[in-house]
Amino acid sequence: MTIIAAPFQTGAPQNDFKPGLEGVVAAETRLSHVDGQKGELIIGGFPLAEFAGEATFEETVYLLWHGDLPSLAALTAFRQQLAGVRTLPAAVVDLLAAAAQQRLPAMTALRMAAGALDLDSQAEEAGLDQAACLLARLPTIVATYWRLRNGQQPVAPDPALHHAANYLYMLTGERPSDAQVRGMETYLNTVVDHGLNASTFAARVIIATGTDLTSALVGALGALKGPLHGGAPGPALDMVFAIGKAERAESTMRAMLERGERLMGFGHRIYKVRDPRAEMLSKAAEKMFRAGGGDLALYTLAKAVEETAVKLLAEYKPGRNLQTNVEFYTALLLHGLGLETDLFTPTFAISRAGGWLAHCFEQQATGRLIRPQSRYVGPIRQW
Amino acid sequence: MTIIAAPFQTGAPQNDFKPGLEGVVAAETRLSHVDGQKGELIIGGFPLAEFAGEATFEETVYLLWHGDLPSLAALTAFRQQLAGVRTLPAAVVDLLAAAAQQRLPAMTALRMAAGALDLDSQAEEAGLDQAACLLARLPTIVATYWRLRNGQQPVAPDPALHHAANYLYMLTGERPSDAQVRGMETYLNTVVDHGLNASTFAARVIIATGTDLTSALVGALGALKGPLHGGAPGPALDMVFAIGKAERAESTMRAMLERGERLMGFGHRIYKVRDPRAEMLSKAAEKMFRAGGGDLALYTLAKAVEETAVKLLAEYKPGRNLQTNVEFYTALLLHGLGLETDLFTPTFAISRAGGWLAHCFEQQATGRLIRPQSRYVGPIRQW
Repeated sequence: MTIIAAPFQTGAPQNDFKPGLEGVVAAETRLSHVDGQKGELIIGGFPLAEFAGEATFEETVYLLWHGDLPSLAALTAFRQQLAGVRTLPAAVVDLLAAAAQQRLPAMTALRMAAGALDLDSQAEEAGLDQAACLLARLPTIVATYWRLRNGQQPVAPDPALHHAANYLYMLTGERPSDAQVRGMETYLNTVVDHGLNASTFAARVIIATGTDLTSALVGALGALKGPLHGGAPGPALDMVFAIGKAERAESTMRAMLERGERLMGFGHRIYKVRDPRAEMLSKAAEKMFRAGGGDLALYTLAKAVEETAVKLLAEYKPGRNLQTNVEFYTALLLHGLGLETDLFTPTFAISRAGGWLAHCFEQQATGRLIRPQSRYVGPIRQW
Repeated sequence: MTIIAAPFQTGAPQNDFKPGLEGVVAAETRLSHVDGQKGELIIGGFPLAEFAGEATFEETVYLLWHGDLPSLAALTAFRQQLAGVRTLPAAVVDLLAAAAQQRLPAMTALRMAAGALDLDSQAEEAGLDQAACLLARLPTIVATYWRLRNGQQPVAPDPALHHAANYLYMLTGERPSDAQVRGMETYLNTVVDHGLNASTFAARVIIATGTDLTSALVGALGALKGPLHGGAPGPALDMVFAIGKAERAESTMRAMLERGERLMGFGHRIYKVRDPRAEMLSKAAEKMFRAGGGDLALYTLAKAVEETAVKLLAEYKPGRNLQTNVEFYTALLLHGLGLETDLFTPTFAISRAGGWLAHCFEQQATGRLIRPQSRYVGPIRQW
């Protein structure tokens, strides 16, 4: 083997290399707009703060998939459609049981079982009915898996309950309170879409080949699973638990910062002011906890930790403007709803799937393959 | 609902929108280099023509995963490693049986079952052992599914056979001839990597979140399934069958071109001269058919169709330089090996998985998330 030349020189100029595709606009979208400077998030045309606490998840998804809010008749039809296809094929339940025996992480089981939904859905259709079937079944997968892993019988979906309420019901086997349902609806609305994040971009790259929606969904689930994306939501809450009492917040976090440790749940790559989703979920959590939907003492402690953390970060990292991010209040809200940490990312996925599928429709409409270039930097050798 | 402004104007200039990411360099790679103008393909440093007809698939994959050819000891160890993990977990076979009952396309079954391989592999490791386990099992999935769908008992893998030979053996239950094995080795080597194609890019976007290799593999399989990528390899051969006799080639294709129909198997988005993979597979097919590995009359017919097609395309589409592409000879070679059309894309995947996993390692080493921007072009409304 003889090395002839290394590295290989291509004719392309060097400055078209965009590692991480930073600053490259890869899609035009009508689905969401993230303004990190102003701390604004628009979903389907509406500022997050205006609708996330009011709408049901079905309305939000309809808005994303159709570009407009549904009429009452259309909303009822959409709800009935979703409620009618929640039950999993038997072979998918068998697969979840096998995964539960191995005690796989819930996100692994979700990605695995979602890929098997083609067993009785019309995968090649890649249209609204297929999307509804996929969206409707994700909560059933997560709840079924969770109960199997905990040695409990799965709870059959209740077609009388909406998407959010039915998810909580399938997890616990108990009817959730109105405050709990509202908390879950608001959470699902808040994280449903967020520009071209990595999982949404993965879904668009995949669907752009003309493949089916299940393939795009499964690819996005695999991306969301990654710790640099949605896969590590636990640590923010762990810190709150470790602190334990409001009066210990300042001393504990000051010691962490002195040791050069990171405070989890603060700062965001894009938002330079407070993440509007954190704002939304903070209000939703307060409302839910005050209405008896969760442990109010925990909420009060978390608020104290947050205020102290933001104050200390301004002192230790001046000019960085590190604000509370969405993970912090996600953890608090979902914990308040009785969800264990391993369910946080799957619950995120149950919401974001509405956005992924909407992006698939948008990408399909462009008819365009997504295919960047690579630059060869290896040697040229002789065999 | 009041529409305040449409479309929403962002501060970003319009010319940073790169639909399809055309011309954007998203990765530096040492894995392959595609020169469409010269019709050259470099794999792991070596020009395709120099090694594809000589190497075994195990050597090629080792080269991509390690950056150098293996020593004899390392090659033997790698072969033994792959051969030792080919057997599928029982629950994956059950899933394939359920898919076979529904007569799902082989690519759907492959994507589904590959996602379930985490049932007994260490998904979170994301290293070479995990990659070897995934790569080793893809032929077992495809062959098991194919036999189940055809009402046959699956054939257990034979650890004494190499990757390519064992795949053919598991499909048919018969030991392949040397000519057939060489044909399959050459095919697998030829299509193992090809720059940042859509499935490879999907794998990199997914693994860049820090997720596991199974997630990236499953995303790539879903992308390859798309008809704009690897998912539509049948039509080139269908045309050869429809023509049936060499003396009918010119009149049939002339009539097609007069009716404005496309001749399938000719032309490529990147290659402006003959696709080097077509050249390689043409030679491999000739060698295999002449050694009695397939139906020589079919090969002779296909050659006649090809020559006539290229002549007619020069006449009807002057200046377009439409040459035979890789699909044409893939179809001929794989058909000669006894594979039905529905197995062409899964067999492509069995090869390309070697490249996908190599790209995952390369992307992991950058430590970088891939996250482009989107531009909001929807309205701003009031709830």
